[in-house]
Amino acid sequence: MATQTKKPAIRTIASFDIRRYWQSCVEDVEAGLDRWLPSVRTKPATIHKAMRYSLFAGGKRVRPTVCLAAAEACGGKREKALPAACAVECIHTYSLIHDDLPAMDNDDFRRGKPTNHKVFGEGIAVLAGDALLTQAFELLSRFPDSRRYGHREAVAELAKASGSLWLIGGQVADLEAEGKGVSVRELKYIHERKTSALLTASLKLGGMSAGCTPRQLEALDVFGYHVGLAFQVIDDILDVTQTSEALGKTAGKDEAVGKATYPCLVGLEKSRKLAKRLTHQAYESLDVFGKRKEPLLAIAKYLLERSH
Amino acid sequence: MATQTKKPAIRTIASFDIRRYWQSCVEDVEAGLDRWLPSVRTKPATIHKAMRYSLFAGGKRVRPTVCLAAAEACGGKREKALPAACAVECIHTYSLIHDDLPAMDNDDFRRGKPTNHKVFGEGIAVLAGDALLTQAFELLSRFPDSRRYGHREAVAELAKASGSLWLIGGQVADLEAEGKGVSVRELKYIHERKTSALLTASLKLGGMSAGCTPRQLEALDVFGYHVGLAFQVIDDILDVTQTSEALGKTAGKDEAVGKATYPCLVGLEKSRKLAKRLTHQAYESLDVFGKRKEPLLAIAKYLLERSH
Repeated sequence: MATQTKKPAIRTIASFDIRRYWQSCVEDVEAGLDRWLPSVRTKPATIHKAMRYSLFAGGKRVRPTVCLAAAEACGGKREKALPAACAVECIHTYSLIHDDLPAMDNDDFRRGKPTNHKVFGEGIAVLAGDALLTQAFELLSRFPDSRRYGHREAVAELAKASGSLWLIGGQVADLEAEGKGVSVRELKYIHERKTSALLTASLKLGGMSAGCTPRQLEALDVFGYHVGLAFQVIDDILDVTQTSEALGKTAGKDEAVGKATYPCLVGLEKSRKLAKRLTHQAYESLDVFGKRKEPLLAIAKYLLERSH
Repeated sequence: MATQTKKPAIRTIASFDIRRYWQSCVEDVEAGLDRWLPSVRTKPATIHKAMRYSLFAGGKRVRPTVCLAAAEACGGKREKALPAACAVECIHTYSLIHDDLPAMDNDDFRRGKPTNHKVFGEGIAVLAGDALLTQAFELLSRFPDSRRYGHREAVAELAKASGSLWLIGGQVADLEAEGKGVSVRELKYIHERKTSALLTASLKLGGMSAGCTPRQLEALDVFGYHVGLAFQVIDDILDVTQTSEALGKTAGKDEAVGKATYPCLVGLEKSRKLAKRLTHQAYESLDVFGKRKEPLLAIAKYLLERSH
């Protein structure tokens, strides 16, 4: 497994090859998922086909990538963080499968491909989501114990971030806000839950796998909060400015269904400024990692400047 | 918390007060669930109302009861098994909420009350199931470490039994079998997954919380397998012989939707004999527990003779 720490140290963000770093994280995560999840030949085959269909549908792998980068920022080894990285991707994928259901956002396309229920039917899509959620906790049985944190803390962290108070709570608030007038404060409440919570948990699990210090864990928490919010503001901006083709999903969907977004609440220009400000606040939290911060810094920059 | 071990030892199954024992388990489990789950006032309130609606809809609490009884059979304390008992009940309730959805079994009533999606809508019902599934793993953060087993083994056991190979795999096979000709062998495959797997995990988690021996764990495994199959055969018998009112759900439903059952495959009389034989096989596995086996023995007998 290629790890960043074996390459020559790169001093400045300008020279850090984020695309190459990201690509190597994606490869490691996809290899891990392929190795640890039941194959499509495992009985009953339908559920494993459905799980793998959405899991390998070409996602950006943001959450597992920040998980691995956080482990490396804390001086840990990438392979120790890999089970947690795969677990957070399973949680993210399950949440997309369920959010896309007709009873929720009713989306036919995701990442340029028909959504899970369009291919396998609604019943199997519900079960494939359930199975990926359960699989995430099974993967955590590979989480390493370190001097400071162990399996118990990792499971508690993932369960809390994915549960009714955070990830699921965000989707509930989102469902309830649809078609209603929503304030910026309420929109922030939704995004903190739908995006920041799991992103932050991904970072913290990476740090914990490396036996990070409490100060490092706190820095990852602050970084995750700001990057998560910035990520969602940018998603909202792209939804109004990009074509469906570029996004791989239906563009302009948020506005069409009366869903509140930052651009519709505060305007495009202010939304762009907000995303930049949040990203810079994220940068500032990384000083505790010294020169090991570069992958995380470059990831935040890359997410800010992405076009899809 | 009243524990059986504090009462005078009861020597024979005839004199063991199973109703009183069961009731005390139900009370402890419901108190645990009420204490550890977010209240209906916790934001977003809708999801917590939906979770608690199904969780407190008057279920029999079979799985948590066998979990507590298994802990006591191994000489453990009931309160140490309580988080696991609550966790398995969360898993069971989530699986019922999702199984009842229109895209799956499409049931309007469960335990005599409208199903979750009839009250809260399909979107919230999917999310309430997801939240209960996640909550189960959060509850396990309270699982005690013993000399032989710890938190890691408990999470692995629950994730495996609830995952795509067992509980969810059984529901997939059940969905795929609907309206098709199914053999006794295929029906057994479904029941082993839909019922025996979680029942067995409940027993093993109870034993593990008490730091049981490998021989005791094996006995609980054998007991759970046979009681689980017997339980499902009896469920099938009750579906054709009882009224909807007595069952609290639509009677004769299995036959109406072309779902295979033991009575329709081998006849009522043979099904009754099978349930009895499986229960007796379950009894035999309990000898390793000496006189502490009585609650488990009485539970198996009670399940065999139940009328709803």
